[in-house]
Amino acid sequence: MSVYLDHAATTPLRREALEAMLPVLTEDFGNPSSVHAYGRRARAALDDARDSLARNLNAEPREIVFTGGGTEAINFALKGAAWAGKGRGHRLVTSAVEHHAVLYSMRHLEKFGFELVVLPVDRYGRLDPDQLDGAISDRTILVSLMLANNEVGTIQQVADLVRRIRGHRNVLIHLDAIQAAPYMALDVEQLDVDLISLAAHKFEGPKGVGALYVRHGTILLPQTHGGSQERFRRAGTENVAGAVGMAVAYDLACAERNEFVPRMAAQRDRLREAVLAVPNVELTGHARKRLPGHLSVIARDSDGEALIRALDLDGVAASTGSACTTGSTEPSHVLTALGYPDEEARGSLRLTLGRTTTDDEIEQAARIIPAAIERMRSASSEIARDPLGAHVDS
Amino acid sequence: MSVYLDHAATTPLRREALEAMLPVLTEDFGNPSSVHAYGRRARAALDDARDSLARNLNAEPREIVFTGGGTEAINFALKGAAWAGKGRGHRLVTSAVEHHAVLYSMRHLEKFGFELVVLPVDRYGRLDPDQLDGAISDRTILVSLMLANNEVGTIQQVADLVRRIRGHRNVLIHLDAIQAAPYMALDVEQLDVDLISLAAHKFEGPKGVGALYVRHGTILLPQTHGGSQERFRRAGTENVAGAVGMAVAYDLACAERNEFVPRMAAQRDRLREAVLAVPNVELTGHARKRLPGHLSVIARDSDGEALIRALDLDGVAASTGSACTTGSTEPSHVLTALGYPDEEARGSLRLTLGRTTTDDEIEQAARIIPAAIERMRSASSEIARDPLGAHVDS
Repeated sequence: MSVYLDHAATTPLRREALEAMLPVLTEDFGNPSSVHAYGRRARAALDDARDSLARNLNAEPREIVFTGGGTEAINFALKGAAWAGKGRGHRLVTSAVEHHAVLYSMRHLEKFGFELVVLPVDRYGRLDPDQLDGAISDRTILVSLMLANNEVGTIQQVADLVRRIRGHRNVLIHLDAIQAAPYMALDVEQLDVDLISLAAHKFEGPKGVGALYVRHGTILLPQTHGGSQERFRRAGTENVAGAVGMAVAYDLACAERNEFVPRMAAQRDRLREAVLAVPNVELTGHARKRLPGHLSVIARDSDGEALIRALDLDGVAASTGSACTTGSTEPSHVLTALGYPDEEARGSLRLTLGRTTTDDEIEQAARIIPAAIERMRSASSEIARDPLGAHVDS
Repeated sequence: MSVYLDHAATTPLRREALEAMLPVLTEDFGNPSSVHAYGRRARAALDDARDSLARNLNAEPREIVFTGGGTEAINFALKGAAWAGKGRGHRLVTSAVEHHAVLYSMRHLEKFGFELVVLPVDRYGRLDPDQLDGAISDRTILVSLMLANNEVGTIQQVADLVRRIRGHRNVLIHLDAIQAAPYMALDVEQLDVDLISLAAHKFEGPKGVGALYVRHGTILLPQTHGGSQERFRRAGTENVAGAVGMAVAYDLACAERNEFVPRMAAQRDRLREAVLAVPNVELTGHARKRLPGHLSVIARDSDGEALIRALDLDGVAASTGSACTTGSTEPSHVLTALGYPDEEARGSLRLTLGRTTTDDEIEQAARIIPAAIERMRSASSEIARDPLGAHVDS
């Protein structure tokens, strides 16, 4: 198997999470809303998962809403808060480097009379606290921030930004912590935000389950209507096994973070050294304030799509950016916001390590990737010199 | 373990579905949007699941949208169709016995200027075709029907109703087939509807995954914004393992239906005979046009909640009605719509068999349930005679 360096797209489900899910997928199959023993056992499993997740966020169990994934958590947070706050105001504020789940949820709300302010960022992807402060009017009801960027790995200086937002009254703060969750401790009291979105499959939990932290007292208008599940906030029979797997995976990530984060950072630095040694390859995002396993670069005069296809054949699984925008012919909105012109953004390469990445894998990748970039470049300059491949004897 | 007679609430995940899910939960963990080998293998698994589900519905793969469950499928169908159709009209039509996912989604739409017509049903839960016809104005954009009712098991005469709706132009038809799916063949051409909601966990698939059939050419406004998954109709990383489990479970249900449906119907009839032999116990829903494993009754002068708690101790897992409304003190909206006064509706008991229910289990249940009803009644008449329990020697 090739070296998997696309942990920002998704991570393998860890064994302990799967083992915790299996009893719930087999004998404890009841509907948590049923009052009989089958239902009560499923309810107990769901309650335990909620308690565990809450404990690891320094939150209360009632503040956790399980969802069908990170995108649903973000949609619910933003639309739920916007609609619930419509009486107080209509301005929504966010940054240009947010995930499309944030940007497109907010664009959708614009159609219903909400006003959207999308703030620019610096060349690393960071918001300016003064500019954020200035964008918040007394009609502002919601600000959405990203703890760490999925494409370029930059960690936003959230503490400074939150302090500025808290200088205004009645503004809810949503934090997209989906990429950051495995690598940065999340404490709802320290973070001082109202809503936090999480996706299990980014921290070795299963796909199809996420969670939204909702600070007690925060009113969201439900976005999914039906049964009374999740304290009337999210209708639908609960994905009990998914919630259990998510809670176990997050618990272990929190317990082991201090051990794997420095290791991943060292591995990433080793890979960075090798990749940046190639001429005309430049780091994107912040050099130090970035996720530990995250390396993103632009290889000038290269086609990122072609490069990751070549790497796939050579034995390295990488990406150009967000998996959620694959197939799009548009250049990355994140790199555009960082100021990269389209032709440079097309040379982007993202290499994201995981907890299970080995030193051996990094050594392999450190050999394969620079060679692939050089080979692709010489092939494309060959084509440029002789576009028809007309190697005809003359 | 007690006899599980609550298959309408949820079913055990079948072994073959779990076995199909395990490779996707382990080695084939990639994000289907990734272009490398890990992603392509996940994409292939997802495509296979979509192909299988489509084939069993006589639909095309592109007409299937995987969702996070049945409730999400219904919400997306109704809100997506209503918003997309707003230019053509604003009237939405449904019946009083629909699942809360339908009724509450439509009530939510009412707040945005849509007009909702909720039609009454007969004492079995069936719509009158003439009345439905008359409710459809030229401003009607959507009708939502239920193939079989979850609480009383009645099968709606959908063919007649659809024919009447098709006499009007530009009305989309959504069919909630969630309860019916394991027991009735669904052919999108024969049914002639535009949207069909399904939930995997009702047919021995996993919880947390559902699907919406969307007839090619039907435009729905997306309700979850973000990535371009599911042909831009439902953003968010796909629950690949869930989709695979759903497709396998549905495929087997379709292959085995002709074998297990008659067996379940015979078992249900045996249980019905035993339960209706108790004085003042009355069948709810239609006597013949009902789901094969579905038995619903009202035991007069009984408290359904207390009865199912007693049955749980006696070794039978049953329910009073929908699991999604557990904890509600309201009488069932379905029984109310069928004309039962509140005090009778409180005596409701639902017994729902599954493919794996055995004759032995039915014999056990046929002994336990009548005895429990009689015992509860005599206990409550004891209390009525001597409310303080004052068995004091005088």
